[in-house]
Amino acid sequence: MARRKRSSPKPPVSEPAPGNGLLDRRIFLSSGLAALGAAGGLALISPGAARAAGPPDTPPWTQYPGGPLSAYGSPSKYESTVTRASIRSQPGTTGSGSSRTPLEALEGAITPSGLHFERHHSGVPDIDPEQHRLLIHGMVKRPLIFTMDALMRYPMQSRIHFMECSGNSQLMYGPTPPALRAGDIHGLVSCSEWTGVPLRMLLEEAGADPAASWLLAEGADSAAMSRSVPMAKAMDDALIALYQNGERLRPENGYPVRLFLPGYEGNMSVKWLRRIKVTSTPTMTKDETSRYTDLQADGKSLMFTYPMDVKSLITRPSPGLTLPRPGLYEVSGLAWSGSGAIAKVEVSADGGQTWAEAALTAPVLPRALTRFRIPWKWNGAPAVMKSRATDSTGEVQPTRDRLVADHGTNVLYHYNAIQAWSIAANGEVKNAYA
Amino acid sequence: MARRKRSSPKPPVSEPAPGNGLLDRRIFLSSGLAALGAAGGLALISPGAARAAGPPDTPPWTQYPGGPLSAYGSPSKYESTVTRASIRSQPGTTGSGSSRTPLEALEGAITPSGLHFERHHSGVPDIDPEQHRLLIHGMVKRPLIFTMDALMRYPMQSRIHFMECSGNSQLMYGPTPPALRAGDIHGLVSCSEWTGVPLRMLLEEAGADPAASWLLAEGADSAAMSRSVPMAKAMDDALIALYQNGERLRPENGYPVRLFLPGYEGNMSVKWLRRIKVTSTPTMTKDETSRYTDLQADGKSLMFTYPMDVKSLITRPSPGLTLPRPGLYEVSGLAWSGSGAIAKVEVSADGGQTWAEAALTAPVLPRALTRFRIPWKWNGAPAVMKSRATDSTGEVQPTRDRLVADHGTNVLYHYNAIQAWSIAANGEVKNAYA
Repeated sequence: MARRKRSSPKPPVSEPAPGNGLLDRRIFLSSGLAALGAAGGLALISPGAARAAGPPDTPPWTQYPGGPLSAYGSPSKYESTVTRASIRSQPGTTGSGSSRTPLEALEGAITPSGLHFERHHSGVPDIDPEQHRLLIHGMVKRPLIFTMDALMRYPMQSRIHFMECSGNSQLMYGPTPPALRAGDIHGLVSCSEWTGVPLRMLLEEAGADPAASWLLAEGADSAAMSRSVPMAKAMDDALIALYQNGERLRPENGYPVRLFLPGYEGNMSVKWLRRIKVTSTPTMTKDETSRYTDLQADGKSLMFTYPMDVKSLITRPSPGLTLPRPGLYEVSGLAWSGSGAIAKVEVSADGGQTWAEAALTAPVLPRALTRFRIPWKWNGAPAVMKSRATDSTGEVQPTRDRLVADHGTNVLYHYNAIQAWSIAANGEVKNAYA
Repeated sequence: MARRKRSSPKPPVSEPAPGNGLLDRRIFLSSGLAALGAAGGLALISPGAARAAGPPDTPPWTQYPGGPLSAYGSPSKYESTVTRASIRSQPGTTGSGSSRTPLEALEGAITPSGLHFERHHSGVPDIDPEQHRLLIHGMVKRPLIFTMDALMRYPMQSRIHFMECSGNSQLMYGPTPPALRAGDIHGLVSCSEWTGVPLRMLLEEAGADPAASWLLAEGADSAAMSRSVPMAKAMDDALIALYQNGERLRPENGYPVRLFLPGYEGNMSVKWLRRIKVTSTPTMTKDETSRYTDLQADGKSLMFTYPMDVKSLITRPSPGLTLPRPGLYEVSGLAWSGSGAIAKVEVSADGGQTWAEAALTAPVLPRALTRFRIPWKWNGAPAVMKSRATDSTGEVQPTRDRLVADHGTNVLYHYNAIQAWSIAANGEVKNAYA
């Protein structure tokens, strides 16, 4: 398999006193609020909003009984604008396209399943689990067909992992920075707790030929989404996933069963999985030849670029979330890598001249979204905010210039460059190539 | 504050070769499937279900485009029976009661927010976040009122924690074992990733009097649910929670803001939080005097029994999930403790005569649900399955006899005894006092 060029020069060492108002990440974690007093005081966070007063009036909802218990809950009607973003389908279809996780509206690391991004090639099939079967065949001693009931009796593992479409952030290859929100640009990434049966166990039960080094995974959607998977990955951490965030998979995430390949580009984790064929070579399906190959500046394409690269972005502040006034803010964002855990996230408030290390929210798990946070005292002058992630293998997120120099701008996939947000004096936040 | 009696004698040491078919927890985790061959072979898991065959016929859903992309997803229609369980409200009300997480239908550790248990004292208030305010007053230098927008600008923390109603498992104090499913009995416990502002930070900003050792937390529901909270807990790990599993709190979990006290009995984590009053003594509200006190056998009541005790149960197998035939199974369950992390879960298949240690799913987090699993080869004879959790403080889950001897059967709260499921020769699973 081709390896993507990964020229990530060692970043400059973080300055002991980073510029433009970034504060030590531990200030909010310690009891050292005295230090904040010196920095302007926490009251700066909400001047005017926090004021002295007596008890508030009794609001209407305290004066009558509230709504009923419910069989299955949903978000508040006041959050009805928090939906999947940029829902787009090919002309003449309603299900061949994508929708995105509204990253700027969320906090923490888990994505609620209702807001997990979607990418379908022929809509969401309406699969009856009683009728669905999973076949394992090809270079095996015993071809096997599993009912869902049979699969549910196998030993399971649960792990928190991100899922990212390789086409995520694609618009950032364009000549001008798209004037969109963080989720519109980067929201083809989500994170869930996945539970399923280790694929290794099923392959061993089928008696996979030790000479077989690949397999084909095929979906039951009418696009028959099909990808070749190296046997080494299948025998390592691949799951036949049945549950997402505690409950059975959602239809748009592959109900009743999907492949899950931690850290690999999303469409290899074939949804609505119906067939695994053990093979000696990659199958060269339409989904890995005419699509999901990475066209380089020299006209050649990279194939089989599996792991998603180390990446991060600041979600707060980000476009659409205007800073109301100068003062103390918490900068918050997400980092992840398909090759391991996040080792470090640095944040710059001066366009990359100086960097300060952000706090990572525990537990920092391999191939999972990791929330980072750092305090920032904004002085009201224009500023350029960036985040730069380093993973446990030492890979560092590249600049956009570096990524484009290495791969050109024809490539539709694997964009992982440092994201810059410019902040104007009026507090407006914009996407920037800076 | 009163401390609950915790007579948990040291359990007998786990036998090196536990009885009645329990296997080493690592068998499924290693590549040692040869060992399973010796134990009967993995095919025993699904005899008849996995059979040799050619590719399956093309099913109907592969023959036409699937459904559309959606703004906010929901579970498959084929999972419509997986709902909150035992929805019950007081006569004449629709919202003064509880609903439970269907534990036996879920896997992993995260509870989907739609299935988080509910316990309301006067329904779910329909709160406009623009109008809602949080007041901090009492023994403070600067009383403060926060809008939700102001709170959203404060530094946040994210943590995965369970929430358990102190009335969970109450039916198990009864004279005969309730013939119900695991969720109906024990489903007033759920687990989410909670994100919010450390309460400590707001109390420091308000200038809480160092002489104050308590606070009162009051909800905006029409029950005005009110509890006294020790200042030490407030200054330790208490959150003013704004997000649950990535998105803003669900209405039934306190939207737009709730108190969250990790490990403490659920109703202290006051939902729809409108007021925190810093005090020198507990307020002795109706919700901690006439209710939520633990009536003992001698007629006295314990008050302020805060941390939820170490506890576990097997969710698979459990009542309603019949074992179709003898063979190899994975036993799966949940363990948790309000005092720390789970250190160990032991499982018995012979009614408690011998015990084997189960595998714990990483990350094992403090005050979070922890999934445990262990392989079991059922020989088809009647069996009694139990699980017994030990937490990081050394506390061990007591037997039911021990719990009843210590606290009597009038107490409605804090039931945490070892749960026994009896398995009949026909594979039927029943609740048992054994």
